[in-house]
Amino acid sequence: MKQVDILFTNALVLTIDDSFRQFDPGAVAVSGNSIVAVGPDAEIRAAFMGSQTVDCKGKILMPGLVNTHTHVPMTLMRGLADDLRLDVWLMGYMMPVEREFVSPEFVRLGTQLACAEMIRGGTTCFADMFYYEDSVAEGTAAAGMRAVCGSSILKFPTPDSRDYEEAFSLARKFIQKWKNHPLIVPSIAPHAPYTTTPEIIKACVAMAVEFDVPLQIHLSETSQEVEGIRAVHGMPVIPYMKKLNLFDSKVIAAHCVHIDEGEIRAMAHAGAGVAHNPSSNLKLASGGAPVSKMLDFHVNVGIGTDGPASNNDLDMFEEMRLTSLLGKLTTGDPTSLPARTVIMMATRGGARAIHMSDKIGSIEPGKRADLILVDIDLVHNAPRFRRDTNSPYSQLVYASKSSDVTDVMVEGAFLMRDRKLKTLNEADLLEKCQSFAVRIDAFLAKREQSILSKLVAIGGAMEEESYEIQVKVRINDSASILKGLAMPAVTIDRTRHYREFDTYFLFEDPSQGRIRYREDEFIDETGNVTQARARLTLIGEVREEHVSHEILLSRSRYFAPAVNSLRFYREYFKPVGEVEIEKDRLRYLIRYKETEFFVHIDRIIKPDIGTFLEIKSRTWNRSDSITKTNLMTELLELFGSASNEPVTKDYIDLIRAS
Amino acid sequence: MKQVDILFTNALVLTIDDSFRQFDPGAVAVSGNSIVAVGPDAEIRAAFMGSQTVDCKGKILMPGLVNTHTHVPMTLMRGLADDLRLDVWLMGYMMPVEREFVSPEFVRLGTQLACAEMIRGGTTCFADMFYYEDSVAEGTAAAGMRAVCGSSILKFPTPDSRDYEEAFSLARKFIQKWKNHPLIVPSIAPHAPYTTTPEIIKACVAMAVEFDVPLQIHLSETSQEVEGIRAVHGMPVIPYMKKLNLFDSKVIAAHCVHIDEGEIRAMAHAGAGVAHNPSSNLKLASGGAPVSKMLDFHVNVGIGTDGPASNNDLDMFEEMRLTSLLGKLTTGDPTSLPARTVIMMATRGGARAIHMSDKIGSIEPGKRADLILVDIDLVHNAPRFRRDTNSPYSQLVYASKSSDVTDVMVEGAFLMRDRKLKTLNEADLLEKCQSFAVRIDAFLAKREQSILSKLVAIGGAMEEESYEIQVKVRINDSASILKGLAMPAVTIDRTRHYREFDTYFLFEDPSQGRIRYREDEFIDETGNVTQARARLTLIGEVREEHVSHEILLSRSRYFAPAVNSLRFYREYFKPVGEVEIEKDRLRYLIRYKETEFFVHIDRIIKPDIGTFLEIKSRTWNRSDSITKTNLMTELLELFGSASNEPVTKDYIDLIRAS
Repeated sequence: MKQVDILFTNALVLTIDDSFRQFDPGAVAVSGNSIVAVGPDAEIRAAFMGSQTVDCKGKILMPGLVNTHTHVPMTLMRGLADDLRLDVWLMGYMMPVEREFVSPEFVRLGTQLACAEMIRGGTTCFADMFYYEDSVAEGTAAAGMRAVCGSSILKFPTPDSRDYEEAFSLARKFIQKWKNHPLIVPSIAPHAPYTTTPEIIKACVAMAVEFDVPLQIHLSETSQEVEGIRAVHGMPVIPYMKKLNLFDSKVIAAHCVHIDEGEIRAMAHAGAGVAHNPSSNLKLASGGAPVSKMLDFHVNVGIGTDGPASNNDLDMFEEMRLTSLLGKLTTGDPTSLPARTVIMMATRGGARAIHMSDKIGSIEPGKRADLILVDIDLVHNAPRFRRDTNSPYSQLVYASKSSDVTDVMVEGAFLMRDRKLKTLNEADLLEKCQSFAVRIDAFLAKREQSILSKLVAIGGAMEEESYEIQVKVRINDSASILKGLAMPAVTIDRTRHYREFDTYFLFEDPSQGRIRYREDEFIDETGNVTQARARLTLIGEVREEHVSHEILLSRSRYFAPAVNSLRFYREYFKPVGEVEIEKDRLRYLIRYKETEFFVHIDRIIKPDIGTFLEIKSRTWNRSDSITKTNLMTELLELFGSASNEPVTKDYIDLIRAS
Repeated sequence: MKQVDILFTNALVLTIDDSFRQFDPGAVAVSGNSIVAVGPDAEIRAAFMGSQTVDCKGKILMPGLVNTHTHVPMTLMRGLADDLRLDVWLMGYMMPVEREFVSPEFVRLGTQLACAEMIRGGTTCFADMFYYEDSVAEGTAAAGMRAVCGSSILKFPTPDSRDYEEAFSLARKFIQKWKNHPLIVPSIAPHAPYTTTPEIIKACVAMAVEFDVPLQIHLSETSQEVEGIRAVHGMPVIPYMKKLNLFDSKVIAAHCVHIDEGEIRAMAHAGAGVAHNPSSNLKLASGGAPVSKMLDFHVNVGIGTDGPASNNDLDMFEEMRLTSLLGKLTTGDPTSLPARTVIMMATRGGARAIHMSDKIGSIEPGKRADLILVDIDLVHNAPRFRRDTNSPYSQLVYASKSSDVTDVMVEGAFLMRDRKLKTLNEADLLEKCQSFAVRIDAFLAKREQSILSKLVAIGGAMEEESYEIQVKVRINDSASILKGLAMPAVTIDRTRHYREFDTYFLFEDPSQGRIRYREDEFIDETGNVTQARARLTLIGEVREEHVSHEILLSRSRYFAPAVNSLRFYREYFKPVGEVEIEKDRLRYLIRYKETEFFVHIDRIIKPDIGTFLEIKSRTWNRSDSITKTNLMTELLELFGSASNEPVTKDYIDLIRAS
């Protein structure tokens, strides 16, 4: 008899190995962090003596579930805002709260709350993408769970990085720190094609290849995304990514809802993993992914919960059931995605999708001891039919609940025994996360509740976060500017002439921003008004920063069509003050040295405070903003305005100051 | 201070009344079977003294959930067969098992197992349709639950009725017995348009109106059903039902997946209730019902689990979540079916749908005390945001699980306290239901596993249960028959001439039936073969019964196209014996006195055992079969064959006997 640490006996063992062997009753021997043996109960008992023996009567013993896509710190935002359109949800709620609250402390706490929930529900490993990913890794390792942790890269500033250069430097340090940890696999996570640039994708692939770590990304989640990429790059998302060599790395692609057969073949050929997130795809009305087809083409598809802010939980049993049900609806075929296939996706298939099937995903000697016990001797799962070897899979997918999981082991260590957590203190977590919720509620109530939610309530608002670099000078006339615009170094892509009538609503709390009601009249070359429109904009407070003598501005703007009268909006928003501005604007979209700029020649008519030249450009990061600053200085020279009086205020603030 | 029986204090009370009032902290006073008062905690505590006080800290107190459509005895068939097409599932597994096992004992046990599960998950009332509904009512009342119990009527024989006349008589007695019970509302349940006749529907409506009880029916579940009704009756399902005056009764219509705006208006106008069953509609790939649209038109839509053989559980929390998620996918709009609407559907809306909103569905003084407590102070439901009054609904729909229900009260009595059932013994139920499962497994393993499942495995099988009345006589020639067919009393609707080559595979166990491999050659008037086809049929054992000297036959047939060779099938099915029969068949579809009959003139060529006249007709019930028997006797006279030698055996049995 060989001595082992732990002997699981008397279980219905589902190995989820290549031949889906079952042992009933079966037993599993574990020593250290690994599985030593699996087989019929009598055989294993005869061969091994366990320091500890776990009687699994009435329970299924199976590999731990693998959640292939989530954002665990967002657990602290669970239920913050539901039943909203993606843009309102993301930009009206998630992003403002993330900007204000996301910190290493927030991330570690959210991670541990998520770990408590996942352990309770039988998940032993997950793939995460967020900010301050070092804190995700720390919180996870402390809880004893296994995870692929992805440090996020976006073209925008994020809670942990002022720009993407800083994000890359964070990611490099993060990967170096965690590279050889027994539980944590570090990875790099360019957010999505539409929130990155080709350069970012290429640099991420280079880093993933350099360190041989997985690369996580959201791909083809919505049809809008696919249309957007097609419009700009002339091809769907997967070919676009392929062109940027994305698939040179070990890709974990979340969603893949809107991909065609050619794209599926390309993913299969590349050995890319896909994380299917049925709850999230349904809740945000993104659609049903072609899972059956992906499996037909041997793509490694796993199952994910996505972040609990959009789900709203981390329950892999729900996702398994939904994977099967949504698969049947999508194909119109009740035989698609049968229970055994779904269990495979949630274990071995998930392990393959996150490039870890050498270590986890099945009960086989030599693999890590990531195991769970599921009680099936309960009224909601009775009776039990034994005629068909598919029955245990069917019981798990169609009738088991996450709350039926009784015991969870990761890397040979129990994280839950008889429904009691061993590594986390739930009462403590609940208390700490509630204190965050109270602060978030107060923040949103103050900042958003009144003005923004009122704007949303009357017909929704499209949000746009702008990061601009801008220079503004006072001018006497526009002659020298028009001369500059005519020079060969400048290409004019578009010219517009407007008369703009703005009414600003001011509120007691300046952090609420201002509402601008704007009527635009478009004026043609002969001076006639050809078109008019009205819209409402909530302009957030400017967060400004001086870069040499130009200004880097970032602020949020929420747009809504103005279908009602000014009087209506005045009564509706009840401003404490109003400012009216009327101006004539000549607006040029130009290219100078391969870079786009907007040039405005603004004559403020009411009140008459003079004429101004504004040069603006969007920017994504620090080095880009320095380059553009230099170009804008050259443009000022070209326009003969370099020595004019610089103006740093918005027109409305100029007027209010005077 | 007024004395009451029970005071629930310190709860987050969701009343789900017309204005969706919430009290946090709130309290509810209960006396006898009714709610006495609801309001702010301090106010209720100041006014009432409870014999028993229940502290609800950290919990939601809300109306019990109403499951508007299920078949509770089928809980004993949970997980019996999954991931199958509807016909294979229904006719290959459900119907044979029902025929063999459904008895009052089976029904009562299945009902109580279902009640245990439903109580654990916060369901306090359900609407059921099954056989031996008296046992459903008994089991439910003994468990202390509330239910609308529907006695099923079908045009076929059922486990509790040899024909629909017997079913009506059962239903009448059932309704009379339970009419004034405090927990049970009896009702009548014509199964569906395609499994009844216009006469059955009309008679059901008459009985429902006579006793003022609800009428339950499955309507527009699949697109095939709608196409079938349209093909026969020239209109969709709802207009067809309206024409039969269905909506004169208090209708509870299950499914309504495939209905258009006109049909929705008609349902709304009629005040009909709809039971939406998202799990079932997904699992059987039936489609997504237009729930948002029905609600827009003020149809009373509730939520149901459907039977646990096709779900596979009775979990209203899963159905609520899925109602919202499927609603968003179906409309492509993430704001549809928001959480509050879904909670309304599962409580007050469900009560309206089953015509019981005067008694249950909300927490209001005077209503029955059907209440549940849901723990929301758990890691998978944290943190809790309080800024938005929608948050508790969102927590319940998107993050709560049925296992979070801690206490359940129906009619003022606790059925569960602190997760312990008060009226049912779970261990006892589990043991008893497992003994049924063992017997069902053995039955299916013996009867179906080998031959039927092998047939299904090679390309599926369409099943047809036939109930025929038949007469067969030996004849010398066909002259007198052809003369009879030419008489004005007989109308020939169709004539076919075949040469049929049959090979029967015989198996050791005759209860497995026989496989017939048949090649049909169609022969035109000039004697040329115009077309040929091959198909495979598994013919079940004949259950025969003598009605005067004719025979009433019922047996199951499973058809599959025969795409492989006879040799292939021989090797595949491994029969213990084979019989070959070759015959020439003249087949007439005739009408005689408004009734359809098939007339066969069969000359058995190989082996040469003579020529036979067969007259056959489908039948649905006893009185119909007697009428048809008389007509067939008249036809025999007309064909000059009344005194010929009667034959009661199938050709194959004639041959094997000789």
